[in-house]
Amino acid sequence: MKLKARYIDVDTGDVSVLMHDFDCAELGLREKDRVKVSHEGVTTVAIVTTSDTIIQKGEIGLLGATLKTIGSEDGELVDITAASKPESVEFIKKKMNGMELTTEEINTLIADISSRALSNIELSAYVTSLYIRGMNLRETVDLTKAMVAGGEVMTFSNGPIYDHHSIGGCPGNKITLLVVPIMAAAGCKMPKTSSRAISSAAGTSDIVETFANVALTPTELKTITEKVGGVLAWGGSLNLAPADDLIIKAEYPLGIDPHAQLLASVMAKKKAVGANFLVIDIPMGEGTKVLTMDEAKTYARDFIQLGEQLDIKVECAITYGGQPLGRAIGPALESIEAIRIMEGAKTPNSVIEKTLSICGMLFEMGGEYQGVEKARQILESGKALKKFQEIVAAQGGKPDITSADIKVGQHSVDVIANQSGYVGQILNKALVRVARTAGSPKDKGAGLVLNKKTGNKVDKGETIFTIYAEHDWKLQEALKMAVRLEPVKIQGMVLARVPAFSRVSL
Amino acid sequence: MKLKARYIDVDTGDVSVLMHDFDCAELGLREKDRVKVSHEGVTTVAIVTTSDTIIQKGEIGLLGATLKTIGSEDGELVDITAASKPESVEFIKKKMNGMELTTEEINTLIADISSRALSNIELSAYVTSLYIRGMNLRETVDLTKAMVAGGEVMTFSNGPIYDHHSIGGCPGNKITLLVVPIMAAAGCKMPKTSSRAISSAAGTSDIVETFANVALTPTELKTITEKVGGVLAWGGSLNLAPADDLIIKAEYPLGIDPHAQLLASVMAKKKAVGANFLVIDIPMGEGTKVLTMDEAKTYARDFIQLGEQLDIKVECAITYGGQPLGRAIGPALESIEAIRIMEGAKTPNSVIEKTLSICGMLFEMGGEYQGVEKARQILESGKALKKFQEIVAAQGGKPDITSADIKVGQHSVDVIANQSGYVGQILNKALVRVARTAGSPKDKGAGLVLNKKTGNKVDKGETIFTIYAEHDWKLQEALKMAVRLEPVKIQGMVLARVPAFSRVSL
Repeated sequence: MKLKARYIDVDTGDVSVLMHDFDCAELGLREKDRVKVSHEGVTTVAIVTTSDTIIQKGEIGLLGATLKTIGSEDGELVDITAASKPESVEFIKKKMNGMELTTEEINTLIADISSRALSNIELSAYVTSLYIRGMNLRETVDLTKAMVAGGEVMTFSNGPIYDHHSIGGCPGNKITLLVVPIMAAAGCKMPKTSSRAISSAAGTSDIVETFANVALTPTELKTITEKVGGVLAWGGSLNLAPADDLIIKAEYPLGIDPHAQLLASVMAKKKAVGANFLVIDIPMGEGTKVLTMDEAKTYARDFIQLGEQLDIKVECAITYGGQPLGRAIGPALESIEAIRIMEGAKTPNSVIEKTLSICGMLFEMGGEYQGVEKARQILESGKALKKFQEIVAAQGGKPDITSADIKVGQHSVDVIANQSGYVGQILNKALVRVARTAGSPKDKGAGLVLNKKTGNKVDKGETIFTIYAEHDWKLQEALKMAVRLEPVKIQGMVLARVPAFSRVSL
Repeated sequence: MKLKARYIDVDTGDVSVLMHDFDCAELGLREKDRVKVSHEGVTTVAIVTTSDTIIQKGEIGLLGATLKTIGSEDGELVDITAASKPESVEFIKKKMNGMELTTEEINTLIADISSRALSNIELSAYVTSLYIRGMNLRETVDLTKAMVAGGEVMTFSNGPIYDHHSIGGCPGNKITLLVVPIMAAAGCKMPKTSSRAISSAAGTSDIVETFANVALTPTELKTITEKVGGVLAWGGSLNLAPADDLIIKAEYPLGIDPHAQLLASVMAKKKAVGANFLVIDIPMGEGTKVLTMDEAKTYARDFIQLGEQLDIKVECAITYGGQPLGRAIGPALESIEAIRIMEGAKTPNSVIEKTLSICGMLFEMGGEYQGVEKARQILESGKALKKFQEIVAAQGGKPDITSADIKVGQHSVDVIANQSGYVGQILNKALVRVARTAGSPKDKGAGLVLNKKTGNKVDKGETIFTIYAEHDWKLQEALKMAVRLEPVKIQGMVLARVPAFSRVSL
């Protein structure tokens, strides 16, 4: 069937076309069926959205990516024939039915996801099925390899390559800013790629962006790693395992992170940068992704086994993530906290000790003894700061940067205790909502700093935490949110009072 | 945040808006998050699609339904605030995790689906979770009731109301055209609603449309039922259990029909027309939805139990659906086959016997004895034809209609046997593809007529089936499809030849 092309200047994510109900019926097509669209030897397959208002009989609306691929002029005739679903839809149904997928099926599935051949409905069915049915080790290995194969793969002139990764969920986890310079100062290569925040207050890349360029090309990543030893790059510009970003588009709205997909997505990015020694940080505790020690151990075992199959030596650190790490949350505030430690600050202890533990594990995986002591010596000697400044300069930031160079939001408000007691609990998710309402991570200077942490004594009138923002209206919204959510719970000394007569009812 | 409204003349199905990346970051929003859109006291919640090309900073693109609801003028300022996900997303996750949903949760879920508050991604997660996890009887009852409550509910001045339904999968199943007049001729009320084809060659409504108007209002359905006794209506115009159509939008692209959803969707529509006595036809066999007797019995048991909870007396007929019922497939061809039977034709036997069996069950459920004999007497006496003509006239068709009034496609081709033998198998799905390629159900005169059925002897050169079409190019495409798919398999007399020496290897 020949239809007249019309450009529709909207990109809804799906590779799609708009067709009139009449023409659809003519070809026996329904909403979400596929058509092959051809024009002067260029062909693409698109998903049909039906319409009887916007598109006239005899017309076809080409949206977003379809438009770019086909390259026909407005008003030209294009050729339309019915096309079948991608084979992957059958593989998704196979997983729905609880069956194991073959290597080839997984390869096809990831290739179809990467080329945006699957609709949102199909992608959602994939992540939902994977969430419910899971994958065995063999499938997960294949999934990881398929994701690696779809993107950039880095090679360095000599190794070994060190790497670390946190599966997330613990606010304030800025240790990458410290780990990379310490490792690089010891002569280890660490081309660290990180992500931006999805639902957290700040991803490592959001933090690094307060003082350096994070959108590096693969060549820049390679050059800086080989020259300086360490890099603090954003994964997004490197095209590593690109299927991941498309899969997240379906995971995020559902708020799910299927176990096998999480494993594969992390490990694919590590394999793509050629990691040899990898420490995975698994924060555990209330308000994180991993609630129990059993679950944490399952993750640890699966990461290690997957690493074996991929020739990556993996060790896991199960860490306490039930309250924020350190005191600062938000891009600029976290930068300052991390740089001050390199400048000699002795607090927050939790940030320093976690940093040294992770570096220690990495050093020891590389064959050193007393890795933690080695890391401590590098940090305390000022070598870490010097290396950090080299990395920042290489990434286009200010040479000789200090913590004083980082600007925080000029609007701030202290949240004050209205009773005395002890901090009984800090709610990670509520704290993140307050920081995000204040503008984090988009407003780099926004966030909050905790003055009190779990177990600390609080007197009435003392500051519990301070909120920072770049805009006053966001500060006011954040304050309202803080009052509503009470992210820091203060308990009186009396944890429970049992009246004497309660014994009567026993 | 105030943004300038811009109309985007596209309806992608989701209630959605386009926003610039910058404004999204400002509100901490990601793709597929929700916003509340307000203008002069009118408020709606829409799903965000981000864009940095089509929409400028400070603008918001209002698509399809959003546009209609808000009613702002192009260029006017609308107020945007971040909104949270519908609660239903949590209930979908609960089902994903294998948990039972409460009555209230199911009510909210169906209300959110009906108001189009869920995105395609969320809807897909719902049907996928339901497919994998299923629902117990209590949940299915609640699901059915929630679906009924969302739409039109019919009441008639007096009962009882008779109804039947086939869960589908058997091509050529035109018995509704016979069952309704037979029941109505006996004084029974049967306000039968049917659907159009989704993936079949012709739905009952596609068939009825060749001689009568099927898009009736609820009032017309009621009036004709009370006056004539029977109706052959299309469910689509009656707003019965409207969530069903929206759920099908996610089921169809995945090719799934979750058990509990199928049960609830069927029974909700029956409850909505006030059915008291209901026969469910469950076609079983290769090429249908139900492959084994065990599966068919599960459906039967579940329909009966669900009926008990809904105060509908249900009986089930498990029928053979492994080859088409009768010989005709396609709207006009099926009409002719059915009307000829009422005019006195003694074939096809399969159509006559199935019709009489279903009518017999309905009569006996209503307290009659020898229901099949009663039905046969009504059919053979000509009373069925007379009642059929009354129904057709009431639905705006030609009074005194006969089979000669129905036009078939003027293009036809015979598919000839190139060898002699017996018909070993008929592939339902392949036959449906041929009929659809010929233009069915959109081209009412398109379809095919089988000259040979399973077990029939075929001589080389004999016609196996004849394809009809309204357009010659479609006829040619259908013929090509028939040659490629070979929907009718002819076997030689020798089913298997065992060579003498095969015994040696035993």
